[in-house]
Amino acid sequence: MADPTTQWLTDREALRALPQRYARAVDQRDLDALAELFDPVGTVEGVRGTAPVPEYLDGFRGPRAFATSLHVFADPLIELEPGADRALLDSYALVHQCRAAEDEGDDLLLGLRYVDEVVRRGGHWVIQHRRTEAVFSRPLPRP
Amino acid sequence: MADPTTQWLTDREALRALPQRYARAVDQRDLDALAELFDPVGTVEGVRGTAPVPEYLDGFRGPRAFATSLHVFADPLIELEPGADRALLDSYALVHQCRAAEDEGDDLLLGLRYVDEVVRRGGHWVIQHRRTEAVFSRPLPRP
Amino acid sequence: MADPTTQWLTDREALRALPQRYARAVDQRDLDALAELFDPVGTVEGVRGTAPVPEYLDGFRGPRAFATSLHVFADPLIELEPGADRALLDSYALVHQCRAAEDEGDDLLLGLRYVDEVVRRGGHWVIQHRRTEAVFSRPLPRP
Repeated sequence: MADPTTQWLTDREALRALPQRYARAVDQRDLDALAELFDPVGTVEGVRGTAPVPEYLDGFRGPRAFATSLHVFADPLIELEPGADRALLDSYALVHQCRAAEDEGDDLLLGLRYVDEVVRRGGHWVIQHRRTEAVFSRPLPRP
Repeated sequence: MADPTTQWLTDREALRALPQRYARAVDQRDLDALAELFDPVGTVEGVRGTAPVPEYLDGFRGPRAFATSLHVFADPLIELEPGADRALLDSYALVHQCRAAEDEGDDLLLGLRYVDEVVRRGGHWVIQHRRTEAVFSRPLPRP
Repeated sequence: MADPTTQWLTDREALRALPQRYARAVDQRDLDALAELFDPVGTVEGVRGTAPVPEYLDGFRGPRAFATSLHVFADPLIELEPGADRALLDSYALVHQCRAAEDEGDDLLLGLRYVDEVVRRGGHWVIQHRRTEAVFSRPLPRP
């Protein structure tokens, strides 16, 4: 049994990895990796409404309007009591959505804030509820 | 009494949260939250000169030229000796300043570097001296 | 001898600092600081091919096309087994390359991913192999 503070620090390392794992999963459209990050009975509150996690994940199937994306996260602000099985992550991100060279239209730059209620499930941390806030959204013209 | 290395790691977690708390306070113009991050007898060296903390905080009152901002920080480089009550934080940030839809003018993107001398005061870490360096500054036209 | 988990956490702090130290070294063209981050017998796989570390470092000598750069890194995804002397760092970054005011041409914004194999050498962590992936690259016109 680890010292409670050491366990708290270790938990924070696992929590800190969540936004980074999300970034890679969503940028690569790796739906299996994405599903691992969410509680299957959780919900995701996005810019266009709230969906149960399975429906949220289904939304990534089908063609992409932007061929490439990059989700660059700032370090999350983590609220976690020692020994707790729940945590709150508040993460800022800059998201670049880029068109394929052959496609028409502007790129898109989003400034986002994700507020995640995270729970420990079988030794892993998963997102039970995510609220996504679009702080700003700007087309970036391609020369 | 915690093991010194565990205390050092715990301190680093508190220090790492400072730029994130600053980002939320400044983006939301939450002057109470902002004031909590600074030593009241400290100073802030900005792009336009150096000010005592109260004067720096006063500068946020009044109308905003940009309706929305997002301060996206990279992880700070933290210098902290085990057991010390002083630390140095060196943080990069991309700052988007966005106009309201109805306002005229370009958005603004800043690349900033904050170098913060931080001290422990009554169990909390506060910024005693901040030096802000504008690495680059670019208008971002709105389509 | 520290507790293995405490050592693991301490190692992660040192590993987390690597991208930040890289950012400052490369943005300031501090070749000595840059050389400290790489294994001298390592290799760097860039957008234009693979080079041994000394050749990679030599590539920074000579005039800069862009007067100023800012490498803003997201927190790295760190793979490290407790007690190991090898780690894997997977880091996203937004890189702004800016022209001098008097120079012609657009600025450049790069979305990069660095995958670093890192080893412990004499108590320090150094990059033995770096693979750099340009996720996107966009000219940013200057008004």
